[in-house]
Amino acid sequence: MIGPEDVEAAAHVIGGVTHRTPAITSRTLDARAGAGVFVKAECLQRAGSFKFRGAYNKIASLTPEERRRGVVAFSSGNHAQAVALASRVLGAEATIVMPEDAPALKLAATRGYGAAVVTYDRYTEDREAIAAALVEERGLTLVPPFEDPLVMAGQGTAALELIEQAGHLDLFLAPVSGGGLMAGCATIVKARFPDARVVGVEPEASDDTRRSLEAGERVTLPDVPRTIADSLQLRAPGVQTFEVNRRLLDEVVCVSDAELVDAMRFAFERMKLVGEPGGVAALAAVLAGRVEPAPRVGLILSGGNIGADRFVELVLG
Amino acid sequence: MIGPEDVEAAAHVIGGVTHRTPAITSRTLDARAGAGVFVKAECLQRAGSFKFRGAYNKIASLTPEERRRGVVAFSSGNHAQAVALASRVLGAEATIVMPEDAPALKLAATRGYGAAVVTYDRYTEDREAIAAALVEERGLTLVPPFEDPLVMAGQGTAALELIEQAGHLDLFLAPVSGGGLMAGCATIVKARFPDARVVGVEPEASDDTRRSLEAGERVTLPDVPRTIADSLQLRAPGVQTFEVNRRLLDEVVCVSDAELVDAMRFAFERMKLVGEPGGVAALAAVLAGRVEPAPRVGLILSGGNIGADRFVELVLG
Repeated sequence: MIGPEDVEAAAHVIGGVTHRTPAITSRTLDARAGAGVFVKAECLQRAGSFKFRGAYNKIASLTPEERRRGVVAFSSGNHAQAVALASRVLGAEATIVMPEDAPALKLAATRGYGAAVVTYDRYTEDREAIAAALVEERGLTLVPPFEDPLVMAGQGTAALELIEQAGHLDLFLAPVSGGGLMAGCATIVKARFPDARVVGVEPEASDDTRRSLEAGERVTLPDVPRTIADSLQLRAPGVQTFEVNRRLLDEVVCVSDAELVDAMRFAFERMKLVGEPGGVAALAAVLAGRVEPAPRVGLILSGGNIGADRFVELVLG
Repeated sequence: MIGPEDVEAAAHVIGGVTHRTPAITSRTLDARAGAGVFVKAECLQRAGSFKFRGAYNKIASLTPEERRRGVVAFSSGNHAQAVALASRVLGAEATIVMPEDAPALKLAATRGYGAAVVTYDRYTEDREAIAAALVEERGLTLVPPFEDPLVMAGQGTAALELIEQAGHLDLFLAPVSGGGLMAGCATIVKARFPDARVVGVEPEASDDTRRSLEAGERVTLPDVPRTIADSLQLRAPGVQTFEVNRRLLDEVVCVSDAELVDAMRFAFERMKLVGEPGGVAALAAVLAGRVEPAPRVGLILSGGNIGADRFVELVLG
């Protein structure tokens, strides 16, 4: 478990290194939502998503000797780029385990941040085993994408900043995948505003945390969910993150892929922001009326790592 | 003429009403530019461009009686939306003179801000005469798009904030159309950093200010320039703005439409920002190597008012 003091401590660690992303407002959004909405634009964060916060907070906690030996992460997405960049900033060696068929753009971006990339065949090999072997053989430190108190606390700084920027919130929303962003954010939001509703958002096809909350225990989806939100495609919540989220979340609501596309277009045309499908999930929930309105709403637009070509394919498909 | 004190005064007037837009950095941009580059993201400004700064500064200077009678502007673009929104915020009645064949989206956006729209046939009618008649008959106050010291000073606050955010600049760039943004910005940049180079950017086909600087007097292009940068399509610089810019500008460089498209894609993929073709002109000049590098560069990404469909047509067309 983590507490609000962990999020506050993380804010001190990351301050001046992470971007203090703007909390953006839009009259059109307020009119659509029937509320005052503050959108924390984490697509403008370094490496393009909130993931840099947690990765930096974790790697900054390592000793000089641990940094010298290096860190390892397995991810084909935003966590990979975040760990690569945070390692570079902190002078740690980073090794990222990525599927050999990951998009060339993502492989290049990760290498571009100076990380070594180890590829694997995702049909025959187990990435966790590969990472564990690197930890064992080379003494690397694993930087988990969400199952780590320092990672969760780091992600929570997004909500802490949003509170500083927007003031009182009646409703807070963030996308939920592994649940690290939500665990960190819910911890600080509920501490500051005990009466605020805290709502997670998942794609309809990837509603493992919604089902888990209903069941009162972690539920694993039978198949890899089919959704355009590739960053929210997990089959089960994390153990540590679910322990936090089951206590603090009021609800998880779901959005369709079409609603994600609408939100991507809205962010583009009305807010001039690029959001990836999973990144706009909380915005989509507000635009599509999936949550009860509240006077003052804060939400995380969590990432913007999408190529122009893929954006076009989705939005104008 | 205006001085730096006018820009500083404007900053006090607009403070807390305009957005203090972020000065965004990108490692990839720095690598491409061989410099430290700060991009002032005015696409995130209210109404989607820097134009809100000047319109607000101007309308805020009016007496209660003048505001009650109302203001008028002629524009089919960003100035229209800026005047409409600034009027609403300040409790003034706004009338916008727009061509009847203006994009439905822009007509709707302007009306959406509460302005009355007067349309005209741009092949047979003169918008300036229509606006002048409204001034004469109804006692409205004209809010010019650039030929006004308060408008120029208001636009200059974009550079003033950028200086506060980025510190010392060796090179400053902004797009030039009527020249109001550049006049205001050059005034404050040259006052703070006399050794900084100040460079305007125009589309190749719309190089009226470049030609005017070379000729030492205002040059009018024979035809409406053919460029995708609809917000930079003027045939001649303003009289007042050119008086400022001819004294302060070191140079005007030009970019091609293809370079504008490249910069739009770069802003989207690397910076997660939506820029309209004219809005990314200064970024395009840096990316395309149209200016001599300098260690610390500040530039204005001046607007982001473009629909997703038009973006696609340009970037992937």
